[in-house]
Amino acid sequence: MNMHPLMRELSEPSDSKIVLVVADGLGGLPQVPGGKTELEAARTPNLDAYAREGVCGLSTPVLPGITPGSGPGHLGLFGYDPLEYRIGRGILEALGINFPVGPRDVAARGNFCTVDAGGLIADRRAGRPTTERCVAMCRKLQQIRIPSVELFVEPVREHRFVVVFRGDDLGDHVNDTDPQVTGQKPLEAKGADPASQNTARAANDFVAQAAHVLKNDAPTNMVTLRGFARYPKIDTMQEVYKLRAVAIAVYPMYRGLARLVGMDVAEAGSTLADQIDTLGRLWKDYDFFFLHYKYTDSTGEDGNFDAKVEMIERLDAVMPRIRDLKPDVLIVTGDHSTPSKLRSHSWHPVPTLLLADSCRQDAVVDFSEPSCLRGALGQFEAKYLMPLALAHARRLGKYGA
Amino acid sequence: MNMHPLMRELSEPSDSKIVLVVADGLGGLPQVPGGKTELEAARTPNLDAYAREGVCGLSTPVLPGITPGSGPGHLGLFGYDPLEYRIGRGILEALGINFPVGPRDVAARGNFCTVDAGGLIADRRAGRPTTERCVAMCRKLQQIRIPSVELFVEPVREHRFVVVFRGDDLGDHVNDTDPQVTGQKPLEAKGADPASQNTARAANDFVAQAAHVLKNDAPTNMVTLRGFARYPKIDTMQEVYKLRAVAIAVYPMYRGLARLVGMDVAEAGSTLADQIDTLGRLWKDYDFFFLHYKYTDSTGEDGNFDAKVEMIERLDAVMPRIRDLKPDVLIVTGDHSTPSKLRSHSWHPVPTLLLADSCRQDAVVDFSEPSCLRGALGQFEAKYLMPLALAHARRLGKYGA
Repeated sequence: MNMHPLMRELSEPSDSKIVLVVADGLGGLPQVPGGKTELEAARTPNLDAYAREGVCGLSTPVLPGITPGSGPGHLGLFGYDPLEYRIGRGILEALGINFPVGPRDVAARGNFCTVDAGGLIADRRAGRPTTERCVAMCRKLQQIRIPSVELFVEPVREHRFVVVFRGDDLGDHVNDTDPQVTGQKPLEAKGADPASQNTARAANDFVAQAAHVLKNDAPTNMVTLRGFARYPKIDTMQEVYKLRAVAIAVYPMYRGLARLVGMDVAEAGSTLADQIDTLGRLWKDYDFFFLHYKYTDSTGEDGNFDAKVEMIERLDAVMPRIRDLKPDVLIVTGDHSTPSKLRSHSWHPVPTLLLADSCRQDAVVDFSEPSCLRGALGQFEAKYLMPLALAHARRLGKYGA
Repeated sequence: MNMHPLMRELSEPSDSKIVLVVADGLGGLPQVPGGKTELEAARTPNLDAYAREGVCGLSTPVLPGITPGSGPGHLGLFGYDPLEYRIGRGILEALGINFPVGPRDVAARGNFCTVDAGGLIADRRAGRPTTERCVAMCRKLQQIRIPSVELFVEPVREHRFVVVFRGDDLGDHVNDTDPQVTGQKPLEAKGADPASQNTARAANDFVAQAAHVLKNDAPTNMVTLRGFARYPKIDTMQEVYKLRAVAIAVYPMYRGLARLVGMDVAEAGSTLADQIDTLGRLWKDYDFFFLHYKYTDSTGEDGNFDAKVEMIERLDAVMPRIRDLKPDVLIVTGDHSTPSKLRSHSWHPVPTLLLADSCRQDAVVDFSEPSCLRGALGQFEAKYLMPLALAHARRLGKYGA
């Protein structure tokens, strides 16, 4: 069920304010059976108080058992059904570096890698070069020219870059050229349909020229491409919800995701304190504030339980500064779980709290995964969070007479 | 998911009896954080006992965050997906006054309004005339004749009336003529397709003649029309569920909604005691009894917490008379929440209890919103209530071998 037609029909302008705090990868797991999750172990007096006052529940990012990437995880939270709106990796990377992708573009994520004299991949990440070297190498790649396709190469970080092919009739059903293992040659790009064959031809031409341009630059002497993707046409949050929305996110990908759904993207600084400053500064200019906090995910990915606990506590410590702005609706959730026990994203439902003046009492006494099971929000698909937020913000009219 | 194909396939005749008590707008909110809802505050020994004996849960009328009108709220309870079956305001109004709308009809809700000498609307409700005056003014409008369309004008209450255009090839994609603000002229009706242009032409003719007929009747000297709607073709409960169903409702709209899904509509008297008498009188003649209780909603709409509490207690007091009839399945729920704090319908899930001899034990100890969170019915879309009722009434066969 795509909620957008209903949202377009029922949403109404208002001067109410909604703050969506996304603690990336918030949900966790106990390290040992019967133990506490990261969120249970963390001392979170503010979030616990809000959980008692508001309503809680567990958000299923996509469907039960499905582990989402950052794209679908966030799209669901923004109310875009992640099974309907699929965003390719290349587009996510391009958006993340502020590259202005358009309707004639196919973007791919590039990796510098190391090949031996026989052309076999010896290091898929080229020994993780510095970002400075990445920039220098991309400058070389920018010299490449391909017939009838405009080419853009932009550095990201370390071994990562973005390549955009701009032209007519370029498809994105093209395989990754990274074989995912060492000791093999990069794969040839192949297109699954005529338009994608145009892209594959351009990609193979680019890779061949890159090999030539970089031949004396070991360990960054070759490239692989993956996640070929066209820019998807997505209705904006302004169109669907009648919200002026802004993203306050430090990391490129989340800024790009926000831009994709039509949010403005603020200069957010680099620390959580900077982000809260930005929130206060922009308070009068927007209706909807997406505040992205990365470190609950990165510590989980590192498998560092204690560090994730500490990052949760740091988030808790700044919550009163957000509350003091008196948002009509304050939501704290995650785009998915990242249990440090698993060192990766997971499928587990995500603890979620919603605070507004129209909440019923539930039995939740603190903000944690087990407590949220007793919450009034129940277990819900993430895509329903926006309708609930709009309802509590009194931004949805009545359905039917 | 429309449940009707499954219901048609699996439903079986039986002599079991189902009573559906709809306490309109039953769900509520605490007036202050941590306080009690209307249902929690009410003394409801009978409902509490049934809640302990039966199973409880929270019904989502449409989808999370969506506030339903009375039409979608009731259709969901009757097992008609409210996103699939959409009933226009004009039809609801016509049904509510027992007007026998048919397949060649387009109905609209009319409002008497006041226009100044320049034709600008000065009062959109004509100073809320008495119903007697409404009747008299409608009698004048009944003189109007329109080429090739049969016209019906019937009073509702105060400034409200119904107009029905009967003819061939009349569509209902016609805009409201009420500009929603004063200081403007009524809007011209326009049709979005050829059939609707036929209706728009008839409507504009009607309004022009009404202006002439009423010109000396200020403040009721003009009319606006809205909610143009054709009579929807809806399968009856008899066809879908093999139920002989009867509505015992005092207010017109709910009687009309019941008629729409093929229920018989009983002469129900005017008090709750009358309704229960009617229930007893008709007990042998029907399988399914829809008993509508209005006052939990109207007190909520008035923002009168204490009055809503009292209305809930009055309902509780008559419950033993219903129980004494020994229904096989007794359901008590609402079509939506109407928290007196919000003075309006809301999106909050609706406390629901189902009592039958095939219920599992759950942790519910009284009938209230927080208790229902611990109920065996969980949180469910309203459209699943009928399948559950039929199952507990042993009226559904097995799906598949």
